[in-house]
Amino acid sequence: MRPSGRAPDQLRPIRFTRGFTSHAEGSVLVEYGNTRVICTASVSDRVPPFLKGKGRGWVTAEYGMLPRATHDRVPREAARGKQGGRTVEIQRLIGRSLRAAVNLEALGERQITVDCDVIQADGGTRTASISGGYVALVDAITALKAKGQIKRDPLFGSVAAVSAGIYKGTPVLDLDYPEDSEAETDMNVVMNEAGGFIEVQGTAEGHAFRPEELQAMLELAQKGIGEIITAQQAALAL
Amino acid sequence: MRPSGRAPDQLRPIRFTRGFTSHAEGSVLVEYGNTRVICTASVSDRVPPFLKGKGRGWVTAEYGMLPRATHDRVPREAARGKQGGRTVEIQRLIGRSLRAAVNLEALGERQITVDCDVIQADGGTRTASISGGYVALVDAITALKAKGQIKRDPLFGSVAAVSAGIYKGTPVLDLDYPEDSEAETDMNVVMNEAGGFIEVQGTAEGHAFRPEELQAMLELAQKGIGEIITAQQAALAL
Amino acid sequence: MRPSGRAPDQLRPIRFTRGFTSHAEGSVLVEYGNTRVICTASVSDRVPPFLKGKGRGWVTAEYGMLPRATHDRVPREAARGKQGGRTVEIQRLIGRSLRAAVNLEALGERQITVDCDVIQADGGTRTASISGGYVALVDAITALKAKGQIKRDPLFGSVAAVSAGIYKGTPVLDLDYPEDSEAETDMNVVMNEAGGFIEVQGTAEGHAFRPEELQAMLELAQKGIGEIITAQQAALAL
Amino acid sequence: MRPSGRAPDQLRPIRFTRGFTSHAEGSVLVEYGNTRVICTASVSDRVPPFLKGKGRGWVTAEYGMLPRATHDRVPREAARGKQGGRTVEIQRLIGRSLRAAVNLEALGERQITVDCDVIQADGGTRTASISGGYVALVDAITALKAKGQIKRDPLFGSVAAVSAGIYKGTPVLDLDYPEDSEAETDMNVVMNEAGGFIEVQGTAEGHAFRPEELQAMLELAQKGIGEIITAQQAALAL
Amino acid sequence: MRPSGRAPDQLRPIRFTRGFTSHAEGSVLVEYGNTRVICTASVSDRVPPFLKGKGRGWVTAEYGMLPRATHDRVPREAARGKQGGRTVEIQRLIGRSLRAAVNLEALGERQITVDCDVIQADGGTRTASISGGYVALVDAITALKAKGQIKRDPLFGSVAAVSAGIYKGTPVLDLDYPEDSEAETDMNVVMNEAGGFIEVQGTAEGHAFRPEELQAMLELAQKGIGEIITAQQAALAL
Amino acid sequence: MRPSGRAPDQLRPIRFTRGFTSHAEGSVLVEYGNTRVICTASVSDRVPPFLKGKGRGWVTAEYGMLPRATHDRVPREAARGKQGGRTVEIQRLIGRSLRAAVNLEALGERQITVDCDVIQADGGTRTASISGGYVALVDAITALKAKGQIKRDPLFGSVAAVSAGIYKGTPVLDLDYPEDSEAETDMNVVMNEAGGFIEVQGTAEGHAFRPEELQAMLELAQKGIGEIITAQQAALAL
Repeated sequence: MRPSGRAPDQLRPIRFTRGFTSHAEGSVLVEYGNTRVICTASVSDRVPPFLKGKGRGWVTAEYGMLPRATHDRVPREAARGKQGGRTVEIQRLIGRSLRAAVNLEALGERQITVDCDVIQADGGTRTASISGGYVALVDAITALKAKGQIKRDPLFGSVAAVSAGIYKGTPVLDLDYPEDSEAETDMNVVMNEAGGFIEVQGTAEGHAFRPEELQAMLELAQKGIGEIITAQQAALAL
Repeated sequence: MRPSGRAPDQLRPIRFTRGFTSHAEGSVLVEYGNTRVICTASVSDRVPPFLKGKGRGWVTAEYGMLPRATHDRVPREAARGKQGGRTVEIQRLIGRSLRAAVNLEALGERQITVDCDVIQADGGTRTASISGGYVALVDAITALKAKGQIKRDPLFGSVAAVSAGIYKGTPVLDLDYPEDSEAETDMNVVMNEAGGFIEVQGTAEGHAFRPEELQAMLELAQKGIGEIITAQQAALAL
Repeated sequence: MRPSGRAPDQLRPIRFTRGFTSHAEGSVLVEYGNTRVICTASVSDRVPPFLKGKGRGWVTAEYGMLPRATHDRVPREAARGKQGGRTVEIQRLIGRSLRAAVNLEALGERQITVDCDVIQADGGTRTASISGGYVALVDAITALKAKGQIKRDPLFGSVAAVSAGIYKGTPVLDLDYPEDSEAETDMNVVMNEAGGFIEVQGTAEGHAFRPEELQAMLELAQKGIGEIITAQQAALAL
Repeated sequence: MRPSGRAPDQLRPIRFTRGFTSHAEGSVLVEYGNTRVICTASVSDRVPPFLKGKGRGWVTAEYGMLPRATHDRVPREAARGKQGGRTVEIQRLIGRSLRAAVNLEALGERQITVDCDVIQADGGTRTASISGGYVALVDAITALKAKGQIKRDPLFGSVAAVSAGIYKGTPVLDLDYPEDSEAETDMNVVMNEAGGFIEVQGTAEGHAFRPEELQAMLELAQKGIGEIITAQQAALAL
Repeated sequence: MRPSGRAPDQLRPIRFTRGFTSHAEGSVLVEYGNTRVICTASVSDRVPPFLKGKGRGWVTAEYGMLPRATHDRVPREAARGKQGGRTVEIQRLIGRSLRAAVNLEALGERQITVDCDVIQADGGTRTASISGGYVALVDAITALKAKGQIKRDPLFGSVAAVSAGIYKGTPVLDLDYPEDSEAETDMNVVMNEAGGFIEVQGTAEGHAFRPEELQAMLELAQKGIGEIITAQQAALAL
Repeated sequence: MRPSGRAPDQLRPIRFTRGFTSHAEGSVLVEYGNTRVICTASVSDRVPPFLKGKGRGWVTAEYGMLPRATHDRVPREAARGKQGGRTVEIQRLIGRSLRAAVNLEALGERQITVDCDVIQADGGTRTASISGGYVALVDAITALKAKGQIKRDPLFGSVAAVSAGIYKGTPVLDLDYPEDSEAETDMNVVMNEAGGFIEVQGTAEGHAFRPEELQAMLELAQKGIGEIITAQQAALAL
């Protein structure tokens, strides 16, 4: 029934390639099927103005797409002179989600910027960015610990994200582009390894969704996130 | 327990004042307690480029705050030369939510722009904007029908929104600013009059929220939206 | 003869509503007939760079119009990414006019920003902004005095503004939009309570105006400003 | 008494050099003493959108200063990414003033852009720009007539401008920078050759000015503009 | 002598991976040692305004770096709201260089945009972009030919680029970052397969370079470009 | 053969007028035939952030064209809100070229900004800007020495620039606009008085150029720069 032939509760192949580029403290290529995102985590001693001198750190995210990551070329945001509304919305979501895993006091007065740049898009770029960004963040924090710059571990737990939706009347997990562009409802869910919700964003694209549909999508997301967290841990154990 | 003395499932006083300003096809002052937003709906014959010549219409929204709508003055976005990320996120949410109530084919090749300008902020400006924007939208569509410019009624039903959250461990409805700034979890819910979800956005501010907390917040929102829809209908009946 | 039926030297009803919104140190709704402007005065400890460490203060103004304050919707300046020429010109005029009433040394090293946001436009928004902005400024300065943050009174006197013009060959006072859009000449006059001129801006829209026409307009403005200052004092006495 | 030794009603040497650069339809170097401005008038077949297909033309102006036209270097507006408030105010004034001399119907559907670029500033750059811009405009219109592109003469008459002010208590004509920076009041006056006012802008810099001071400044301006118009005619007769 | 141990006239390993991403008509990962750039060529039916209706095509390029492609994180240009001077200079060079290989009449009224996005930088990103961009361009043109959209072959020949410089007094080929940051002179050379120069840009970083040094760098570049063109042809033959 | 009747190796008349405007530390009108550029050098105590506290100075350049310096009016960059790619490229070239003549340690912690504003363009504006900017720079440095603010002479030598190209198959020196717009190859060369190259930029406009053509253009440039340096020295000796 699904264009890809997947079962309704089946993820695409999920892959995390650490050390994908060489300069960043954390650098991960994350793949959710054909969706490929480079996530780097960069550590800096400069915090945003509102945190100066407060002894706390910050985690923030930026998101971009290469102009031809998509089916048709999308104008380069740097050339247009501003980031679009979708970009702003996504990078705010990634930042909030990752901060939920970090004790900012323990991080100390420094900022980690997680850049998520999509090199190939096939649906789910924001959820892949969160899951991949988390792995890059762990590597950057591990580097800080190895250098002795952090005393306490600032990580609370792990964070992963996945989408669920209603496609042709059926709740399905981890929508790819052909499904996403047809779905009646699209939901992005961010959770931690203890099964707590960090962010839930559901949008009716076609008709409003009923409480039982919401419930079914949440359950699919819970199952998928469990598997993604397992994949993150496996990648981090290498 | 709540700073305002309200019961956990109690809304603030909700008020819709139609005809608040004179030029717009629809003009509503919406008040959720001390939160006051001017919502105007403006009809135009020009649609966005991607809809030109397709015979379908569009509904979009813009959001702004007067610089001193808030406790401390916030720099004017027009003077800074761009809209901030929060503004972009909110106006996209308002636009999506209102479009869910409109049959864009029936609207014909025209655009309705709903401007939501906060003149006083005390929490919940985005949910008030959606509920007030809907009333302004109805007035604008009624005007189009009165002039005979629309044959079929483009309205599917009604749309309203409210927030719910976990404040000091208790699920509460319609957070005001003192609650919002302390809440562990904040959820914005948009629903239609049939109890269908149009948008659900929940964010863990402090700790991740559990499925039963999510459930409790959704139930509070359902109750509150029922009351708000009643208030909308009452205002529209005047 | 005038579309509104007013006598040539008759003002529209002028109203100042203090405390219109709750957060600002001064907040006034000013109405010149159907023209309605929210004026807030916000006090800050930060002065512009050129005044840092000089012990002097500053008064500045910003002006905006809600997109549908006018007959046709005007694109939101924040969305367009810049303030238009008309906006810039008006806010500079408001700022200069209000500074003329303030001893900046006595104000001390702080800035008062007067925001004038037009919610409904029917001609004369800039003169209403000056007269209303003055009342908001007085309230903000009174608050500073009440807190003991100012020793000397920084106010020299009062400031008010009104327009005059030549409409169908006759000099008239306080033009509304139907007159303004037809006027051959438009003049904005700012004066203090002692009858001194703070700003005089006359523009020939149709034909150049003669010295005796200029004289007639100045006399109308003098009369009108006297009445507006009386209304300001009455509002401030409440 | 004046720093330059001039009599109170004495202009600086006024000079108009036509054909200053070679490409523009009209190109004039105007000098008011040490203030030097290059004014070019460029003819184009493209009118602003609001005039398309209406058979009427437009005259507009742009103003700029070379970064080191002034005592201290001022950041280049092109590099800062926007024109400052003062620039916007001045170019709107120049445009309005020149349009007052032109029958836009007779001009036909074309636009003349008058660029005024200050290469050396010593007070009075906006009034010099208007007077010099007028001469460039005449040359551009003469070129159109010579090519037979215009049937009726679109020029109503001539336009010139000068400043007057109160310097150390005395009304003086055509302020240079040392006077301007000390003046209590500054007034810019634009008139036509028939003695009609096109624009009057008076600003109290120090104290508010009295009606008789306003009168004295207007009389100085009338005298000065008479002399400037004579100089314009002489330059145009060459 | 060189930090990498290479001989003065030795290139880094050069690699072209075609089909690196799936959506673009041409998509190539080019590697000059540790410098890695994704080059995509996108075909569009829209030409720039100055070519509309002229029957000729256009080739243009855009260049970007992922924020952490470099040793220290560089602010994202889309977030800063503009492309920096270096970016603009580089993308103009890439566009000019590629256009030199294309008969724009034969291309027909369509535009090919070559996006060069650096994912890892180690010196020579602009020369790698040109050589890799050429391979992507060939693939895009081949696709046009395969679809029968082009009758004549618009390609004149091939284009490749490399740098040469004076490092510690010795002319060397294809500088990597450690060399580039120390070089006294840096030269970028673009040539075609017939040994003709398309672009030569030499800059003295430390002291001015002598004619014989210029000659030595040109000869190194000629040798290197020969080898790079061989690598391009080999990649295109796969 | 050349449109101007010049011999292939003949410069246009080159003129440097020092003290062209009065405020800048150095102010030069440079003329290469009909190309006229105002170059001013402004001294400031503020260095760019990356040099703060390092005891070294900086020389930078900005470039602009009056809107009607060219045959057709070009939109004002300040009004468009950004500098175009060509402007950015040119001002970076001017800055690099002038820095090559200055010992930045000897300059001390101060910045000299060289503004080059083209008032009339006829080809070669960037090379004229470099040669004229150098003369303005010398005057500014002489002023610093005269005031005793500099101990060591920060000037290494002189800098001048000229173009060469292939016009109708013949190498020619110092292209004017009619030649430039037709040239097959265009080269800009910056050299010092010792015959060392500071910058060499050659671009094939039509066909790729051969090594012997490159050689011929370099020799023409060497000859021309010798003559320009002589003219600079003569102007500086006045």
